[in-house]
Amino acid sequence: MNQKAFQDYYPDELNHCYGCGRLNEQGLKLKSYWDGEETVAVFTPRPYHIAIPGVVYGGLIASIIDCHSTGTAAAAAYQAEGREMGTEPPVRFVTASLHVEYIRPAPLGVPLEVRGKIKEIKGRKVVVSATVSAGGEICAKGEVVVVKMPEQMMPKER
Amino acid sequence: MNQKAFQDYYPDELNHCYGCGRLNEQGLKLKSYWDGEETVAVFTPRPYHIAIPGVVYGGLIASIIDCHSTGTAAAAAYQAEGREMGTEPPVRFVTASLHVEYIRPAPLGVPLEVRGKIKEIKGRKVVVSATVSAGGEICAKGEVVVVKMPEQMMPKER
Repeated sequence: MNQKAFQDYYPDELNHCYGCGRLNEQGLKLKSYWDGEETVAVFTPRPYHIAIPGVVYGGLIASIIDCHSTGTAAAAAYQAEGREMGTEPPVRFVTASLHVEYIRPAPLGVPLEVRGKIKEIKGRKVVVSATVSAGGEICAKGEVVVVKMPEQMMPKER
Repeated sequence: MNQKAFQDYYPDELNHCYGCGRLNEQGLKLKSYWDGEETVAVFTPRPYHIAIPGVVYGGLIASIIDCHSTGTAAAAAYQAEGREMGTEPPVRFVTASLHVEYIRPAPLGVPLEVRGKIKEIKGRKVVVSATVSAGGEICAKGEVVVVKMPEQMMPKER
């Protein structure tokens, strides 16, 4: 994909997230995109991201669901306001709650596909449902409640 | 603490977890202990484990809740069977579901304390409730449902 990812539009000051920050050198750098009315991100776990040999670590799955959901919420919020991502003022979400059901072990060594759907947008709150699949099989399902980042956490000067 | 951590009793074959495996060189190496009827682990996030500068990444908080809960379940299961951790046959849990409520931002640069309590033990299933605190203030609450690792995932030969 040569379109820009949602996370590439985050302001630099808010682009240091370990899961998805463009500017976090040690981070996972998850990249999320629209795919019709859903959103998608693909992430290949590193060899050490394991729970037991050959099986992806559940905390990593929770992490990519989390970051994909905050990104999905940001993209949907811009869309709901009828403006392009990256236009001012910036919109960024933080996680209020994260729920993950682990359906089957996710095998290491293949790309994981995270898909997100907006379940609800209401005021400052967005609910995102997500799945994580490996080789076309759903390994985990998530539901994430995110809220717009409080003003005091947003960058002051632009 | 000079007692052995729960995770130090996991069989080598099941001790590679990114969150708590003694043998995962790149991992977080979370260590969990009894503290009365509760369990406790202390983890200091690395400088790059951030959501935004100065604030700990939510996916890391989910990860340490997850690993502390599987460890707590293992310790409680041995206790319920009236035997010492590390005795045969080994007991190890996997996560069925993970729920985290983020209460307030966890500041970077201080140790996080994860505390766990057994909420229910029933057959192969254990429910653990957990909190994560920084400087005595609760930053997140978790509830984790874990199940005994299926036989086919356990090491075959001892």
